[in-house]
Amino acid sequence: MSEGAFIARLKEMASSHERVKVGIGDDGAVLVTSQETVVATDMLLDGVHFRCEDMAGEAIGRKSLAVNLSDLAAMASIPEAAFLSLAVPKSLPPRFLEGFMTGFLELAERYQVALAGGDTNSWGGAFCVNVTVTGRVSERGVITRGALGGDLLYVSGPLGGSFESNHHLYFEPRVDLALKLHHSLPLRGMMDLSDGLGIDLERFLKPGQGVQIFGEQLPIRSNLQHLPIEEQIARAFGDGEDFELLFALPKEVDLAIAGIKAYLIGEVTDSESRELFLGQKRIPYPKGGFEHSWGDK
Amino acid sequence: MSEGAFIARLKEMASSHERVKVGIGDDGAVLVTSQETVVATDMLLDGVHFRCEDMAGEAIGRKSLAVNLSDLAAMASIPEAAFLSLAVPKSLPPRFLEGFMTGFLELAERYQVALAGGDTNSWGGAFCVNVTVTGRVSERGVITRGALGGDLLYVSGPLGGSFESNHHLYFEPRVDLALKLHHSLPLRGMMDLSDGLGIDLERFLKPGQGVQIFGEQLPIRSNLQHLPIEEQIARAFGDGEDFELLFALPKEVDLAIAGIKAYLIGEVTDSESRELFLGQKRIPYPKGGFEHSWGDK
Repeated sequence: MSEGAFIARLKEMASSHERVKVGIGDDGAVLVTSQETVVATDMLLDGVHFRCEDMAGEAIGRKSLAVNLSDLAAMASIPEAAFLSLAVPKSLPPRFLEGFMTGFLELAERYQVALAGGDTNSWGGAFCVNVTVTGRVSERGVITRGALGGDLLYVSGPLGGSFESNHHLYFEPRVDLALKLHHSLPLRGMMDLSDGLGIDLERFLKPGQGVQIFGEQLPIRSNLQHLPIEEQIARAFGDGEDFELLFALPKEVDLAIAGIKAYLIGEVTDSESRELFLGQKRIPYPKGGFEHSWGDK
Repeated sequence: MSEGAFIARLKEMASSHERVKVGIGDDGAVLVTSQETVVATDMLLDGVHFRCEDMAGEAIGRKSLAVNLSDLAAMASIPEAAFLSLAVPKSLPPRFLEGFMTGFLELAERYQVALAGGDTNSWGGAFCVNVTVTGRVSERGVITRGALGGDLLYVSGPLGGSFESNHHLYFEPRVDLALKLHHSLPLRGMMDLSDGLGIDLERFLKPGQGVQIFGEQLPIRSNLQHLPIEEQIARAFGDGEDFELLFALPKEVDLAIAGIKAYLIGEVTDSESRELFLGQKRIPYPKGGFEHSWGDK
């Protein structure tokens, strides 16, 4: 299949969008924008974020967009447009890409996201995808990471075991929940959990801050619930790819009154210590989470 | 080197920008935008668009941004922000990436482009870069591809021989010229030449249109000027990576009066034929240009 034929096919498959003035097929896209625009981008790689050999093209296409929508959700932004860059192995069967685009565009339609542009390449290497998404901002503005000492920490769903359960392929990006949270509550800060609660908490806290985590209140994915509790907690800290929201609220806020279900998991402190409790008992705070690295030999 | 250390380093190296409200280090960036925003994206791959083995990191970093700025130039858009995604081979020496970022950020500074976000990954595959850029629009709006029958076609500089001369690494994206053209002339349409005049012209013309190309007026890069004229023309049609502007103007417009230097190369017609002339003599119209393809066995 040629690049030209593929792009023509995408033009057919992609829906129009009132905020996309110029879409696929020019040197750049032209978006109708307002005062603020949120932009997020994520790259996904064969052998790291998915495996072409044993996962369906549909699932990989879906995930490529979903992880980006999860970033927009974390900013409480309303998704609008997506840009898709592909490095296609020369030997890749065209039906794989057809599946990929189906999975991608089905999720795009569900969230009213326009595929507005991209770049298609072939090479001798493995399948590599980059997606950039843009979103608009509600009248309440964006939400960034961070909290104040004394704030309570919540997550939007179960953690750990995402790979084995295929949650990482089929999770629902928390766009709707994020907008509802932002609309109904005085959110202090929010992020999405992609690399594991352990490392992501470090990215959420400000220098000088610490946490107390209530271990028995951590929601754990059902496929891990047969494990000893300490192991469940370690997996929630370390596995990653949960794509749930982590957010902070002032202590006096009652989530239940807003009709929102989420899991209270701990409290931000003004000391630098990281503390994990099981009931009244303090247990070792787990290291954990995924971080890319290179050049270390 | 770890992803966290690399991102911290980027934050140090990247300059602030009045149109970037939230930059590197959150789930997404927040840009201050106006009524219209132009977005372009390009992926560059080791072994296709550059070779890590025998090109400097600086040159590859520079090119990764430059090809994207060339796309914004083609839309007559003013560059503002860039988003950089990397797939870094685990064995890549950290000094290569340091050079890459130096080349990238030097060009960014020159065009007042803020590095506002991105995504960093490591893997077992080859080096892969994706850049997305955003730009604002002047009061005259954007310019897209296309022309009317009878319009004259111009290019902004010499074509062909880009790889051998290293033009593809060190070209100047035609941002300033594009804005000047758009400001001073009734531009009918514009694009940047990246895959070769032959294939790019096909993307420029509307269905039902054709061209007459004035072969002896095609500007040819100096490293090809020892070749027979027909071969020079074939290389201009086929080599690609020129990153010059192709634009169309109504016949009555005098480019010289506007003080702009560009090369008249032909005329758009309302017939579907593609014609190439050397003086009064019609010679075969060359096929040419680069197109990615896959899955053909």
